[in-house]
Order: sequence, then structure tokens, then C-alpha cells
Amino acid sequence: MGYRAINFSAGPSTLPEEVLKKAAAEMLNYEGTGESVMEMSHRSAEFQKIIDDAEQNLRDLMNIPDDYYVLFLQGGGTLQFSMVPINLLTNSKKADYIITGNWAKKAYEEAQKFGDIRALASSADKNFSYIPKFKKEDIREDVDYVYVCYNNTIYGTHYNEVPDVGDHLLVADMSSCVLSEEIDVTKFGLIYAGAQKNVAPAGVTIVIVRKDLVGHAPENTPIYLDYAIHAKKGSMYNTPPCYSIYMAGEVFKYLKSIGGVKEMHERDVRKAGKLYDYLDHSEMFTPTVAKEDRSLMNVTFVTGDPELDKKFVAGARERGMLNLAGHRTTGGMRASIYNAMPEEGVDALIAYMKEFEDENK
Amino acid sequence: MGYRAINFSAGPSTLPEEVLKKAAAEMLNYEGTGESVMEMSHRSAEFQKIIDDAEQNLRDLMNIPDDYYVLFLQGGGTLQFSMVPINLLTNSKKADYIITGNWAKKAYEEAQKFGDIRALASSADKNFSYIPKFKKEDIREDVDYVYVCYNNTIYGTHYNEVPDVGDHLLVADMSSCVLSEEIDVTKFGLIYAGAQKNVAPAGVTIVIVRKDLVGHAPENTPIYLDYAIHAKKGSMYNTPPCYSIYMAGEVFKYLKSIGGVKEMHERDVRKAGKLYDYLDHSEMFTPTVAKEDRSLMNVTFVTGDPELDKKFVAGARERGMLNLAGHRTTGGMRASIYNAMPEEGVDALIAYMKEFEDENK
Repeated sequence: MGYRAINFSAGPSTLPEEVLKKAAAEMLNYEGTGESVMEMSHRSAEFQKIIDDAEQNLRDLMNIPDDYYVLFLQGGGTLQFSMVPINLLTNSKKADYIITGNWAKKAYEEAQKFGDIRALASSADKNFSYIPKFKKEDIREDVDYVYVCYNNTIYGTHYNEVPDVGDHLLVADMSSCVLSEEIDVTKFGLIYAGAQKNVAPAGVTIVIVRKDLVGHAPENTPIYLDYAIHAKKGSMYNTPPCYSIYMAGEVFKYLKSIGGVKEMHERDVRKAGKLYDYLDHSEMFTPTVAKEDRSLMNVTFVTGDPELDKKFVAGARERGMLNLAGHRTTGGMRASIYNAMPEEGVDALIAYMKEFEDENK
Repeated sequence: MGYRAINFSAGPSTLPEEVLKKAAAEMLNYEGTGESVMEMSHRSAEFQKIIDDAEQNLRDLMNIPDDYYVLFLQGGGTLQFSMVPINLLTNSKKADYIITGNWAKKAYEEAQKFGDIRALASSADKNFSYIPKFKKEDIREDVDYVYVCYNNTIYGTHYNEVPDVGDHLLVADMSSCVLSEEIDVTKFGLIYAGAQKNVAPAGVTIVIVRKDLVGHAPENTPIYLDYAIHAKKGSMYNTPPCYSIYMAGEVFKYLKSIGGVKEMHERDVRKAGKLYDYLDHSEMFTPTVAKEDRSLMNVTFVTGDPELDKKFVAGARERGMLNLAGHRTTGGMRASIYNAMPEEGVDALIAYMKEFEDENK
């Protein structure tokens, strides 16, 4: 198969090599069926098993209780920005959002089409470089839910404990951290995650939603936007994104085989720990996020000199380390080191950083 | 790669073997990038070229004029059932639908959430086994559009000429016939097609829409459902279903390499012609659709004896011919012989039909 880059892309992003190899090997003939998974009727017994296994393995990995649905949907986080308020603003039609960056802000703006939405807290004052605190008493008493973006891909921040919302319903976008840490699902009413960062290729979004919250969308909701339709039909009301679901399922199997989320988390802590440790002691590179709010998945840093940043990113590219430029709204650098990034990838990055620092003192 | 079945699935369905082989070969390293297409940032130059080439090749294949957008969206036909009325019911908020089967009916029912929708004609009286006629004078004068399902996958019917709607705007679901025949795009305001039948794996829907029709969605439309958002951002407002778009692009290249839609259509006519010719002369099998409305893509037939139908389908399966059972609402048999079905597949089916007919006289 030849050359493999070290890919620090923020998403779509690197996938486990084992899974890609298996997918390539069975591309024309899945388990003796004589079909590619891409060619399979979604109503076939073979595909039913693929989606059932994917759901069960995700339930096992995340310890998802039976009173939650697991849905595999299309439309990405963007469609969830609409589906969450449409489906969950059912009583007061109020919700409080925490603005921790670009994606939280987009979710907040979109929700305003459907109810009385307030920004409860924001870290916009320091370009979203921290997770803003709030008191549960500050939440409006009758909100239908409180919304957070759990890991902020662009800024490298992360909720390192579940925010305390008291008795309120908590909704979280976990697109860029799902399956990187053990999460108590019962603390959330709804969790969603676009697959293209930590799970699978783009094109499928996982929604984990408490069953009692489903079935209350307004009458004239566009049919695809009603969770109830998908829940009733096991994510197959219409043709699902079969191949992305198959790939997600293969990643789930792979995660189970290495010891599940607990083991994965230990690896992620080790990988990110090495990188932050280097950054905290470097005389050239500075991490941009306060220690308590740092993400294990997206590590952001700067030299303080935009020209030097550019030189660093270009040099990395020459060494086969891709996508290290920070988001256009932050500048600097970002190393996305999702589950599928091997520890050797992080080691190679640190080695290059040392070399670069020596050469550019 | 081993065994390949002959797959008559109605969708997702068989793909060109050349394309699957190429996808397998470059799964871990696309054109020397060291990344799978699945792992590529959608903001990378490499992916931009993939989506640009896919669009340009589709424009070439279908002769799509510059005053039409080509969009690659998620959510399948089902999301289009909502997006079409939301975006196109802009003046009278009236539309007339032709009910030619299950999918047209679902589109019609969904559209009722958004305007004054009427069924202009229907073939429900004979279980949708023909294309119902209507006079253009019967269209309500001020409708925003007239909607048809161009090929009816379940029933094996097809519009063998563009319906005459006079000066009205025509919208067509071409999911199961796109790229199987030369179409004058300028006769349509909007054409859409889920990819999972004639183009690519499930997960991407192609929308071809006249530019002046875009940008008129109501203010509080869920953002993903506004064509304007996708048009403005070249189908990359959010992360698109990258791998499905790549596969679609590879199918477009393949179609160009064999001589384009004209050549494909000749092959499709030859394949379907053989099968209908056999059916028209068989003493056991009867085609279910009148000659003038027959589909080149989905060929439906019965023996008249449900037990014999079952035996036929089971025997076919033993011979590696998959998915020949008709839809649950029609019974009988259906052979979906999309572009990617090789002529040898049809020959094998006919040979088996002869054998079965001899043995079960």
C-alpha cells in the first residue's frame, strides 16, 4: 500500500490502519457475499447485521443504557444544530447555550429560529481559549435544555468534567472527543457526534438520545428532522449512509479489541501528555489553552511569530506531517491527535519540534 | 478478490468493478498523498480537486448549463421531499404532483406540510403499473412547480418522454435512472438523484437546480435545508460525505471513459431489450408494465403463482444471482439492471429463466 503520511487533520482525519486494510481487502467481496458493502441492499440480512453490530458495539463501548436510542443519521453536526431545538424545545421553548467557540455559536444561532435561546456563558473575550464557568443557579429555571460543545476542535478546549446543570437536561456535541474518554451517558439527555473526527469517514452522525425525549417534534417538521422517524425504523427509515456505518462499526470492533474506551483513554492521555509536556517546557512554542481546559484531541500552540509558524508548518509537511496549521480564526498550529493517531506520530512531531527549536533559536 | 455475485439489488446496488478495484487499491494512499480519501481534510487542495472534478465530469456527462448549480448533499431523497417544497414554493405556494408510486406519494405527502399540494394524476388504480397521462391544461395555472418521479424503482415504470408541462416548472426525482439516458436538463427546474442506485454508495444526493430558483427559502428554514447555503459554498458549507463524492466522481470518470451517457444508454437499451424480449415471448413469465412505460433500469415480472415466484428467487440466489424478489408491495420479481450491471449478468439471468421455465412447465 506504500507511503502513509502522519496526518494531524482536524477532520476528516486519520483512521486506524488495520480498519482501512480490512476495508480494502473486502471491497469487492464482503465475507463471501460477492458484494461490496457499498453494493448491498440496506434491507439485506447482511447489512442488518452490520448496523445491528455497530449499534451494539457502540452501546458496549459507551455503556449506553437501554432507555437511550442510538441513531445513525446524515447531515452532520449542522443538521443537529436544527434537529436538537426542533425536537427538544417542547415545553418552555427556552434553552441556554454555552458559547465555547465557532461550532457552539453556530448551534446557538441556528436554535434561535426555533425558540427563546440565551447565551448563558461565553469565552469569546479571550478567543475561546478557555471553558467559561457558570453557576447552575444562573440557568433559566424553565429551560428545556442546556447545550454545550464538549470538545472545541478549533481552540483545543475540552470539558474536563461534566458541567453541573442541576436537574436540567444536558445536550452535548461530542463530535471531536467521542470514544476518547469514559462518559456517564445518563448525565446527558442527548449526545451527538459527527463521525469524521474520531470514528469513521464523513457522512454519518451518531445521535444518542433518551427515549422519552423523542416523539415531540412539531407537526410540520420536515420528516428527516424528526428523531422519532429514525428511532422507529432503526435508523433505516430511508437508505442510511451504509458504508460510513460499516466503517464506524469496524472502528468500534477495533476499539473493543484493544481494550475499549478505558484503554483508548490511557493512550490518549499518554499521547497528549507528552505533547503538552514538551510545550510547557519549550522556549519557542506556547500552548494556547489553560491547563485545566485542555483537549486530549486537539492540541493548539503558537510560536508568537506568524512567519515562524508558517515555516514550522511547511517544514512539517516536507517531513510527511500534514495539516498542522491552526484554524484560520486562530492562526498558529494545531495537532489533532485523535484516537487513530499512533503514539509514534506524536513522537515524530515532538522530535521535529525540538529540531526546529534548535535551528530557529 | 474472489467471488463476485450478480447483484440485481434495487439500491444500494452493483458498482463498476473497475471503480471498486481502484478504490481498494488507493484505500491507504490516494495518489501518493499517504492518506485515504476518507482521512483527507475536506479543506485540502486534494479533496477540492476531487469534488471539482466530480462536478465538472457530471456537467460534461449530462450537458448541464452554467445557469444550474450542481450540489452534493446528504439526507437522501427523503430530505429532498422536504427541501423541494421549502425552497420552491415561493409564490402561490401551490404545486401539482403526479403519483406514480410509493416514492412520489411520499414526496406528495411531505410537501403538504409546506403548501397547497394537489395530485394531478395517479396510477394507483392499477398498482402503479403505468405512467398516468395528464393534459398541461389540467395543471393549476399558478403552481410553483409540477413534480414527477421519473423512474419508479418499485414498479418498473419510467417516463419515456419528458412530460409536457407547458411553461410550468418541472421537478424530477431521477434517483433510479440518472445517467442512463440523455436528458435535456433545460426542460427541468430541478433534478435530484440519490446516488445509491446508478451512481455511487448511499450517502450522497445529487441536486441539479436552476440558479434563479435558489435563495428564496423562508427565513426560519433549518440551515441545512436551504439550497442557497450549499450553493454559496460549493457543497462544502459543512463537511460533505467525502468518500461517497469520491466514488461518484470515479463512476463519472468511468462513464466518460466508455463513451459517456450516449454509449451507456445504448448498452442499457440492449440489456433491457434482451430481457423484455424474453419476457414478452415467455409462456411462464409476464412483464408487469405496459410497453410504452417500461423502465430500462428496473424490470418487473411475475409468474402469476407466488409459490413459483419464491422458488425462482431462491434458485437464482443459489446460482449467485441476488435480490431478484420484487418489492413487498408488488410481489413477483424485479431485476434491477442499472448502468453497472454487465450484459453478462442479464444473459445469465435469461439463461436461468429458460432453464427454470423448462423445468417447471
